Parts: sequence; structure tokens; C-alpha cells
Amino acid sequence: MLDLWYSEFHTDQVKFSIKVDKHLYTEETPFQKLDFFSSKEFGTFFTLDGLMMVNEKDEFIYHDMITHVALASNPSIKSVLVIGGGDGGTVRELTRYPHIEKIDMVEIDEAVVRACQKYLPLTASKLEDSRVNLYFEDGVAFVKDKKEAYDLILVDSTDPIGPGEGLFTKAFYQDCFDALTKDGILVNQHESPYYDRDSKAMKKAHNKLKELFPVCKVYEFHMPTYPSGHWLFGFASKRIDPIKDIQKDEWEKIGLKTKYYNTDLHIASFSLPTYVKEMLEENE
Amino acid sequence: MLDLWYSEFHTDQVKFSIKVDKHLYTEETPFQKLDFFSSKEFGTFFTLDGLMMVNEKDEFIYHDMITHVALASNPSIKSVLVIGGGDGGTVRELTRYPHIEKIDMVEIDEAVVRACQKYLPLTASKLEDSRVNLYFEDGVAFVKDKKEAYDLILVDSTDPIGPGEGLFTKAFYQDCFDALTKDGILVNQHESPYYDRDSKAMKKAHNKLKELFPVCKVYEFHMPTYPSGHWLFGFASKRIDPIKDIQKDEWEKIGLKTKYYNTDLHIASFSLPTYVKEMLEENE
Repeated sequence: MLDLWYSEFHTDQVKFSIKVDKHLYTEETPFQKLDFFSSKEFGTFFTLDGLMMVNEKDEFIYHDMITHVALASNPSIKSVLVIGGGDGGTVRELTRYPHIEKIDMVEIDEAVVRACQKYLPLTASKLEDSRVNLYFEDGVAFVKDKKEAYDLILVDSTDPIGPGEGLFTKAFYQDCFDALTKDGILVNQHESPYYDRDSKAMKKAHNKLKELFPVCKVYEFHMPTYPSGHWLFGFASKRIDPIKDIQKDEWEKIGLKTKYYNTDLHIASFSLPTYVKEMLEENE
Repeated sequence: MLDLWYSEFHTDQVKFSIKVDKHLYTEETPFQKLDFFSSKEFGTFFTLDGLMMVNEKDEFIYHDMITHVALASNPSIKSVLVIGGGDGGTVRELTRYPHIEKIDMVEIDEAVVRACQKYLPLTASKLEDSRVNLYFEDGVAFVKDKKEAYDLILVDSTDPIGPGEGLFTKAFYQDCFDALTKDGILVNQHESPYYDRDSKAMKKAHNKLKELFPVCKVYEFHMPTYPSGHWLFGFASKRIDPIKDIQKDEWEKIGLKTKYYNTDLHIASFSLPTYVKEMLEENE
């Protein structure tokens, strides 16, 4: 019997491995290497340059947390920009809100979208919603000339190496600020506090965002297949506070069934462990 | 160069591996197999029957969360029973409270304590505190004849297989109930919601506790080296509610510096993801 394992180095000293049934697909694009696998524990999963991006077992956690926190903080959001997110899971959650009118998604690598549409319909199935506009461009360039165009920007990026690198710069965050309306919110893939490389990226992203946005907070969630399982999003906004301004009743009224997110957890997720708070307060 | 890896199967399809500098010690006791290793990422760590118990990098998380939640919920706790916990980390945190008068620790396997005293002084160093009484006995038998003897029982157990199995039974929880004073609290190592085997153990433990204790809640924390990194404790008590009754100011006054725990996180940790709440509400 074939004994095939996918392994990811979470640090050069720590390895996470998943038993694979089948290597479904591989492609080298101008940007990165894509691989799709099937597995018993996590269903279909896909990697970019060998790193786990999305799998069928825990994608609901990441996609719940990247979208619903902002949408419950401001249930009047009408116009959304997703940067990255080629698997489509973030867009899928956004399309569940009837009051959202426009979803622009800018993914640098069209091949990711096409492969996810074929192998991961669980996340990619709503990319054809009539409100969704797909742009296969560099998100950094796309956002440059936009002024007060979006109520929400979701930065659904890879790690700050390779094609995702430009998404962790201050110039990019400044452009995002300018692209947001006066009630605008930015949610940023904020890496993790636990292993050194990830916590350095977390601190850098956070320090840059807090120089620009009046409200700048961090929330956490349990993401079993990401390094350490302890993952974060940054919540930055011009005015709206994710705790004081949460519209619990309005959000409940929309009637979405969510498997991870709920409005109590929303508030709770901003209470961080002491060592994480201390790291975020450090200035570089 | 020696390329030595410790691996643990988190499920039969998922493997977590740590690069090892040295295999420091091994011992077969009448109860289980002990192994101690040194590593760059996690410092010294030890395993029982091949499963990660404690390491120097993330032990502070587990030991903060098993002790301080109960101690902040009732700062008058004077008498504590620790069942299991041979590494000493739970006792170490308890000894930081000057008002605790008595700490009984019942560990079935003396060899665990002796090896941790030698190889893991970080956790074992306070076992010689004058308030600590060590009993090398079966915790299940030890608790049987105790009546209203403890304000707090911490069940710091291994998984419900091998020597830890009896600690997940209703008879044992009933004996704990009887051993607690009228303000008594039980904190139980509650496994994890994520992988099937762990979530089954979680549901079993929770269903048994909620039949016995008027207050029965569950709180979560990020434990990177345990399967999925998403781990839980059960909080069961005769009267005290960990959220309504938290004594924030009194706890702050004690002046303990903690790296993971804080009183905001205490409250937040009881807000669980929707799928976990639903699992806990299921009856077997």
C-alpha cells in the first residue's frame, strides 16, 4: 500500500505531516508552485510552495473569522475588496450577506482560482456570484489609485515571502487606508505569535497598521493546520471599534448559520494572552 | 550530523515531529514508558508512552490555565488536591499563592516526579514547598474516602487511556464532588474538540460532569504541542461561576506575573466556537 505523506516545516525544527491518499494536481505558475492533495483527515487540501493554504476540514474556521467579525462590527458594509484569497472561501462567506452589493477580488495568480474551482468547489463555488468581480492583478498595484471605494478590505494573503511580500508593507497599508470609506475596516492576515518567524511578521504588520489607523486591534482563533494552531487577524479601522460597535442583534437577524463564529466569540477573540499583548506593544 | 526526530501521531493520519538534540533519559515503569529529550525549539520535553506531556516552551500556557482560572474565581481557596500532574508545573503555579495552605498531589507514578525533578526543574522545582504533600498512589482510590476536604481539585491527567483511564469515569467525578467543600471547584483536563478521538473523550467527560455539578462550563486555550493546538479544561463547581464570580481586583492585588493568563482572557476563554458548543450540548 502506498505510504505517502505531505510534510510542512513549521520551523526548521518542527514538522507537521498529513497522510495523503492522492497527489491530485501540480502546477508551476510564474508566481509559485501549486499542489492539490486528497487525504482522509483533512479532505482535499492545497499548498503554495509547499505550505498548507486551505483544506476541507478547517477552512471554515479561517473564513468565518476573516469575514464575520468585520460584518458584525458594521452591518452596513456594501462594497468589499478581497486581496488574495484565490481559493474563494472568503468570497463565499461574503456572498452570504444579501446587503453586500459589490465584491472585488484581486488575486495575482489566476491559476490558483482555476485550480480551486476544479479541485476545491467547497471554497470556490461562489466566485461566480453576480456581485463578484475577479481581477487577476497585483493587489498592491490595484489598490494604489482607489479613493474611498470600499467599506471593507480583507487582506487574505500568504506569508510575507514570495508573492505575498508586498502585502506586508506600510505603503500598501497606506493605500488601503485611502481606498477605504470613512467607516472603513481593514482585516489583515496577521500571522501567529508562537514561532519566531511568524511572530516577527505579526509585529511588523501590526506596527505598520497602528501608525496609520486610529483603531488597531488583533484577534485570535484556533487554526489547527497552521503553525502552532494559534493564528491572528489584525482589525484596523478609521472609526469602528469591533467590540464597542458590534451589532449583535442586527447580525443575528441576518440568520447566518456559522460553525466557528458567533458574536460572543467575536468579542472574546480580542482578549489575548499576556505574552501576545506584550509582543504587540513592543515597537521595533 | 545526527538527524533525530521525535514524532507523535495526532491521529493515524496526522504526525507532529520535533527535531531532537539528545535522548536524555528513558524508563519503563509499572505504569508507562517515560522519555526525556532536549530540543532547540521546545527545550527539554518529556513523553509518556510516546505522547508529548510537557516541554519548556509551552508548558506555561497549560499551567497558567489549569490553575489561575479557579484561583481568580475564588481567591479564598486554601486547600487544593492535584491529581496527576507529576511534572510539578501545576503545583508550581499553586505555590505562588501565599494564601493557599495545603496542596496535596497524588501521582500514581513516582518515577515521573523523580525524573522531572532531575530533567525538568522548570516545572518540578516547587514540589518541595512546605505546603506540598506528595502521595504516590492511585488518585481514584485516594479521593474515595475524602469528604469536604478540598476547595479545589485539579485533575491534571493524561489521555483517557492507560493509567489515566479511571480519571474519566462518573464514579471518580462523584468522589471528587464529595471531596469538595461547599464552594468547591473541579478543573478537569478536558481534551480537545478537533480530532475525533479527542472530541469523543471531551464529550464523555463533559456529560458525566454536568450530571453531577450545578455549574459545569468549558474553557479553551492555545496549546501548540497538543493535537490540533486547541485544548480545553472543564470547570465544574457546586456554586461558583467562573464568569459571574470572578474577583478581578482581588486577583490583581496578589500581583502574580503571568505570561498567558489574564483576567480578560479568563472570561473570554469560556466563549467557545459554535461547533464546540454544539458538541458539548449533545447527549451521548
